[in-house]
Amino acid sequence: MAEPAKTLDGWYVLHDLRSVDWASWKKLSPTERENILSEFHSHLEKWDAVEASQEGSHGMYKMMGQKSDIMFMWLRPTMDELHEIEHAFNKSGLAEFLIPNYSYVSVVELSNYLPADKDPNEDPEIQARLKPILPKWQYVCFYPMDKRREGNDNWYMLDMEDRQTMMRSHGMIGRGYAGKVRQIISGSVGFDDWEWGVTLYAHDMLQFKKLVYEMRFDEVSARYGEFGSFFVGMQLPAKELGDYFYV
Amino acid sequence: MAEPAKTLDGWYVLHDLRSVDWASWKKLSPTERENILSEFHSHLEKWDAVEASQEGSHGMYKMMGQKSDIMFMWLRPTMDELHEIEHAFNKSGLAEFLIPNYSYVSVVELSNYLPADKDPNEDPEIQARLKPILPKWQYVCFYPMDKRREGNDNWYMLDMEDRQTMMRSHGMIGRGYAGKVRQIISGSVGFDDWEWGVTLYAHDMLQFKKLVYEMRFDEVSARYGEFGSFFVGMQLPAKELGDYFYV
Amino acid sequence: MAEPAKTLDGWYVLHDLRSVDWASWKKLSPTERENILSEFHSHLEKWDAVEASQEGSHGMYKMMGQKSDIMFMWLRPTMDELHEIEHAFNKSGLAEFLIPNYSYVSVVELSNYLPADKDPNEDPEIQARLKPILPKWQYVCFYPMDKRREGNDNWYMLDMEDRQTMMRSHGMIGRGYAGKVRQIISGSVGFDDWEWGVTLYAHDMLQFKKLVYEMRFDEVSARYGEFGSFFVGMQLPAKELGDYFYV
Amino acid sequence: MAEPAKTLDGWYVLHDLRSVDWASWKKLSPTERENILSEFHSHLEKWDAVEASQEGSHGMYKMMGQKSDIMFMWLRPTMDELHEIEHAFNKSGLAEFLIPNYSYVSVVELSNYLPADKDPNEDPEIQARLKPILPKWQYVCFYPMDKRREGNDNWYMLDMEDRQTMMRSHGMIGRGYAGKVRQIISGSVGFDDWEWGVTLYAHDMLQFKKLVYEMRFDEVSARYGEFGSFFVGMQLPAKELGDYFYV
Amino acid sequence: MAEPAKTLDGWYVLHDLRSVDWASWKKLSPTERENILSEFHSHLEKWDAVEASQEGSHGMYKMMGQKSDIMFMWLRPTMDELHEIEHAFNKSGLAEFLIPNYSYVSVVELSNYLPADKDPNEDPEIQARLKPILPKWQYVCFYPMDKRREGNDNWYMLDMEDRQTMMRSHGMIGRGYAGKVRQIISGSVGFDDWEWGVTLYAHDMLQFKKLVYEMRFDEVSARYGEFGSFFVGMQLPAKELGDYFYV
Repeated sequence: MAEPAKTLDGWYVLHDLRSVDWASWKKLSPTERENILSEFHSHLEKWDAVEASQEGSHGMYKMMGQKSDIMFMWLRPTMDELHEIEHAFNKSGLAEFLIPNYSYVSVVELSNYLPADKDPNEDPEIQARLKPILPKWQYVCFYPMDKRREGNDNWYMLDMEDRQTMMRSHGMIGRGYAGKVRQIISGSVGFDDWEWGVTLYAHDMLQFKKLVYEMRFDEVSARYGEFGSFFVGMQLPAKELGDYFYV
Repeated sequence: MAEPAKTLDGWYVLHDLRSVDWASWKKLSPTERENILSEFHSHLEKWDAVEASQEGSHGMYKMMGQKSDIMFMWLRPTMDELHEIEHAFNKSGLAEFLIPNYSYVSVVELSNYLPADKDPNEDPEIQARLKPILPKWQYVCFYPMDKRREGNDNWYMLDMEDRQTMMRSHGMIGRGYAGKVRQIISGSVGFDDWEWGVTLYAHDMLQFKKLVYEMRFDEVSARYGEFGSFFVGMQLPAKELGDYFYV
Repeated sequence: MAEPAKTLDGWYVLHDLRSVDWASWKKLSPTERENILSEFHSHLEKWDAVEASQEGSHGMYKMMGQKSDIMFMWLRPTMDELHEIEHAFNKSGLAEFLIPNYSYVSVVELSNYLPADKDPNEDPEIQARLKPILPKWQYVCFYPMDKRREGNDNWYMLDMEDRQTMMRSHGMIGRGYAGKVRQIISGSVGFDDWEWGVTLYAHDMLQFKKLVYEMRFDEVSARYGEFGSFFVGMQLPAKELGDYFYV
Repeated sequence: MAEPAKTLDGWYVLHDLRSVDWASWKKLSPTERENILSEFHSHLEKWDAVEASQEGSHGMYKMMGQKSDIMFMWLRPTMDELHEIEHAFNKSGLAEFLIPNYSYVSVVELSNYLPADKDPNEDPEIQARLKPILPKWQYVCFYPMDKRREGNDNWYMLDMEDRQTMMRSHGMIGRGYAGKVRQIISGSVGFDDWEWGVTLYAHDMLQFKKLVYEMRFDEVSARYGEFGSFFVGMQLPAKELGDYFYV
Repeated sequence: MAEPAKTLDGWYVLHDLRSVDWASWKKLSPTERENILSEFHSHLEKWDAVEASQEGSHGMYKMMGQKSDIMFMWLRPTMDELHEIEHAFNKSGLAEFLIPNYSYVSVVELSNYLPADKDPNEDPEIQARLKPILPKWQYVCFYPMDKRREGNDNWYMLDMEDRQTMMRSHGMIGRGYAGKVRQIISGSVGFDDWEWGVTLYAHDMLQFKKLVYEMRFDEVSARYGEFGSFFVGMQLPAKELGDYFYV
């Protein structure tokens, strides 16, 4: 048996993607719409308070194409807190007009394929990466992925050293995008249908394509990467919600 | 032909996952909602009585993400009893507001890849494992799986000894999680679309990820495991139902 | 080119699986429900008359899990008769409350991989197997399947002798379940999306699992079997219909 | 690069499969139903006139099982004409009660894997095969297919000679069904999701099974054939429409 | 690691395919329909103005078969502009009657597998290809595709030279269709579920089939091409909209 990589786990994450049911939304009176948005703002205020106290984070994005209109991301120290958010949101007025498209359950993860000479529980940089406040960079890209286990291309049958070498090369490409792309890796083995969720942020959307394309030629992706759906979008700031939902 | 493993079969199991149709639920009057929940509590009381008399067991869980809101699990000595529960539940008032997401039909199974020197019908420990009262541990994880039959990775073409060796190593990993994760394996060959259902319980949700991830590097998973969807959640105690459905 | 097996073909078969729309059904008045069931009983009487005159057969089963609530099976000498049954049923009142889940079009088939020294058209046993009156055994299991054509595991590239040897071994396992499991094989190459439909009957549901599991270790399944969805259930006798649909 | 086969292309073809929404249809008054069918008969008359003048052809079939109730086939010299038919039909009254199931866009195709010593544009037999009036034979079978491109089984990497030899053997099997099965091959590379559509006609439905089963042992199918869904049915003559839709 | 091809990226592209809900559309009064189309024409005028100033382009096509009725294509310098178009369109009256079928997010891309001796930012021809005004040719074909990464057929493990040789041969086939087929390649790695979108234009629809079929025998497609759904259709000029939606 190959030695598993050790991982550090941080905040739990829920990605939640929904489409707006515009036809039904337009049937409401302006007052009804206003009340629904006002109720939603009270949810947002609670989430903002949590983020302000560094006990979690969240993001809200307007997405491209028919796969989804809005993506929510919530990060919290426990799965129970995530469930409470989701449950309360599902009961809210706005949720009646947001059709579920896709969701993803994971936990922020750092893998120690790279040599570690620090105590992660004491290291403030590692702690900040495990419990990240989501970047406010303009563009977002989310996709789930697996490591392949197929015939001769079986990641989980490789020994630690080979995996480490390949992951290091992979990391080098990533480092070439420092300042251009920020990434949050969250692990979902045992939690959801793929093994990892990847959430990327950029100031220029083209950087997502450049990074993912360059990595695809790297052996770890070329031979061992299996990818789910890609979702891209941009920040939907709370103060734009009125415009977004104005009809 | 490779010699099949012998298995011991216990109670039949039905996993049943549903989403709440909140929009319709909210349209009911408080009295209508109360009546529906009260009718559902009468079902729960019957199920509780069965569990009290050790003639079956059941669980109710609130689930993470859009794949499902509530998972029911019922265990009974016969498939006929399971059908009666499902049939009565489908006719109930609450079922009108619970959209079916996924279900799974199986039977609790112990495989004797491990050496057995006891008469299973007489052994109280084995009997308790075949007819389990579901743990009340906080977190639950359910997924179906197959053993692969593909090219050189064909589990069913291996001889008994190789399979035994691999299953023993697999069991060793599981034993490392004693006290952290409890598992119920149920067989579904000939009953449903995957070969096994795996239901895990933990006090700490992270243990699901650690266990499943560690096992993935084990040859029996790395080369021979095929996995369906993963569903995770937490106990939904009967006494919380009022809050859960309060709108 | 490998020599194809010769097959004998009997009655055409339609499997038809549906879910009850309980929410709509409950909205009807007792009289409306009664009228609909009474109309359905007139269909049943016609089908019973056909079976009594040995010109066809049919079955009605209550199914486990969310995949389906009721499975109908009809067998007739011509596809035209099957279409008439389906067409008339689709127009019936009950069909408005039965949501289609899955159907399967095939023809009862005996393959002569086994040596034959009789004239099948004269042999009453063979005729009875080609034109079977469906067993009234309590439990039913239905699944479609293919023979694999993939890389080195290509059934259709094997020569007749190898296929015969493997099918004979397969048959031996089946014979070990005599009195426990009865099977009806129907061919669907050119008729539906899989190559065969397998319908099993048992007095004890566990026998389905034992049989299918044992066979999976047999080379013909291990290397060459591809399986569709498995549906299991139990007899729904006409006289129980009132109870079944009582709300 | 392997030399592509040359093909001759004839009329464009649209297969269009739909299910009847009987519940809604039954809600109409007899007069409304009559008006809708009368409007549909005016479409049929136009199509009949086109067929009478040999400028196209069409078929209408009642299909087996839940996959579809009615299959339409239209053949025309241009895709624009096919779009006009589809567009007008979608706006018609009957289309409101016919739920789309599947459609297929292709063009009648003859491949010259077989030696050709005639000028196809002058040859009346070839012209008749490229612009076929659909047979009125009782039974129909439609399925789309691909040639496989997988590992060692890659049709498109074979050289012309090997492909020719295999196609010739394939053709020999087909010729053994002369008078029993008529086939129309239509190409859909670049038009729809599979590479070819196969439409078969027979007086005896069993011949579809015999032909497709025999061919499956032929190397060209065994190693290189990938098949989509199979749809089978029978003629639905215009004069039976009143009965078909009578409720 | 294989050296990635360098790419030039131009305008962002959104393909958006929808079906008309004729049943609901027909329920409107003539005045309501007129108002909705008039609102849509105001969108069209804005898009036309953008195209006239060469700051983007768009196309509108009527599609064949049930997969989609209308395909929109929008090209803009930024993803934000594409989102604004989509968002405004989704809120429009017409969108209530257009059911989403499929969408695709990409960016016009030129790959430099071919030797380049010009500065692309200065070269007017390259700039015109990166920021294309969509051809008004009658027929359109759209499909997404991947380069395969499977066993021995792994495009991303080939070295640059081999890929270049194969792409050159591929390009030669394309050049044989000059004047017959125009193509726009858009890259979607990191943006959507496939790696590229291919949009073809022709005066004769048969040319799509000839080109795609010929290319399929080319090693780069035969061994390394994976294809998504194919959608074909024809121009839907703004001035035909009245007829198109007339009921």
